[in-house]
Amino acid sequence: MKNLKLILAYDGTAYHGFQRQANALTVQQVVEERLARIFGHKITLTGAARTDAGVHAYGQVVNFYTGGSIPVERIPAAAQGLLPRDIVVCSAEEVDADFHARYNAKSKIYQYKIYTGPIADPFLRNYAWHITRPLCVDTMDRVVSQVKGTHDFSAFRAAGSAPVNPVRTILDAACRNNGSMIEIMFWGTGFLYHMVRNLVGTLIDVGTGKITVDDFAAILAAKDRNAAGMTAPPQGLFLQRIFY
Amino acid sequence: MKNLKLILAYDGTAYHGFQRQANALTVQQVVEERLARIFGHKITLTGAARTDAGVHAYGQVVNFYTGGSIPVERIPAAAQGLLPRDIVVCSAEEVDADFHARYNAKSKIYQYKIYTGPIADPFLRNYAWHITRPLCVDTMDRVVSQVKGTHDFSAFRAAGSAPVNPVRTILDAACRNNGSMIEIMFWGTGFLYHMVRNLVGTLIDVGTGKITVDDFAAILAAKDRNAAGMTAPPQGLFLQRIFY
Repeated sequence: MKNLKLILAYDGTAYHGFQRQANALTVQQVVEERLARIFGHKITLTGAARTDAGVHAYGQVVNFYTGGSIPVERIPAAAQGLLPRDIVVCSAEEVDADFHARYNAKSKIYQYKIYTGPIADPFLRNYAWHITRPLCVDTMDRVVSQVKGTHDFSAFRAAGSAPVNPVRTILDAACRNNGSMIEIMFWGTGFLYHMVRNLVGTLIDVGTGKITVDDFAAILAAKDRNAAGMTAPPQGLFLQRIFY
Repeated sequence: MKNLKLILAYDGTAYHGFQRQANALTVQQVVEERLARIFGHKITLTGAARTDAGVHAYGQVVNFYTGGSIPVERIPAAAQGLLPRDIVVCSAEEVDADFHARYNAKSKIYQYKIYTGPIADPFLRNYAWHITRPLCVDTMDRVVSQVKGTHDFSAFRAAGSAPVNPVRTILDAACRNNGSMIEIMFWGTGFLYHMVRNLVGTLIDVGTGKITVDDFAAILAAKDRNAAGMTAPPQGLFLQRIFY
């Protein structure tokens, strides 16, 4: 048996997230079904990250076991012939038998995009959060710097989520203007469920002046989800890259 | 009665082109139906340009007559509340009673996008033609320059299209690299049906070296559609702007 690692890019618009669900179409289900046709046996993927409905990926990583003999370098092209065009296998390689896409991930980069043009852009409707209120990017960047390091992120975890250890380490974070787009980047060793989207929602409150930089620090310190802002919508979020 | 001019942007992916059809969903039908709800009476749009199924617009222009009293500056926001998110009313203004979006158009700019990355990008599947064969952009730009001026474009008109005067004037045209994207721009006083997509298809034959720059000149001069290349797929084409 070989253990194969694939990097996937997908437009999450049409899917109920990455992870297989009983009654909803997910990226995992589609990829497993199409790979099964290529390899001639049932495929069970291990995904590195769950992405929610509407969230996108440039660099999702999965692994699976196969006894199939298809040369690994041919997998991307073979998959492209079978997958819908909103899912792409970017690369495939054979890895050690004990490689596990989720457990071995050392860090991940997420990016969140905010479109600030005065009028909605029909081509960005599924790929950015459209905000027309003025946002102070410099202030937002100062706040984003505050989350670097190791913190208890309870204030930014999904309400009612499983009681896992809420301490996470953010290696780098930045917020910058790129034309009419604000791009917010988080590079961390791990993320709580909805953590990036909850951080972005609260960051917007700082950008509009609804709360101050000190307020943000107090929310983080208080570990109180109710004090933080809204959950930013999914379509602005991109899983960029996973490091091993 | 007032004559109103709107600028529309739309993602053409989900529509069978701009112009109303009996048995297929078009941009015109959707906009007319939604505007009818805003104005309280039937709306008949005059569109400046037909765009085909899958072709996009940043600057389609339409006009229509209404006795309605809604302030013109409120129309974009009112439309945004009713239109699907793949169609946007960018601006609205009252114009002279005899303004006609199609007959008064002096020139139009179209852009065609070709994605040249080695692997398909799921986010560009509906917004560019993906070509992985090497393309010489400098040679393509030299060819594009040849179409500037007034020519008989019979070689690049749709086969079997209505026998209109095939002479058109191209005011400017250019082909440039923008990262992994090749952007081809045509600014002309008018275009034959499928003319831009037929020009692009033949241009690709020059870019790959299948035909030479001189071959292209001969095809244009020969006015023979059968000598030209394929019709480029619709998803790379954008109606950028219309001048009056």
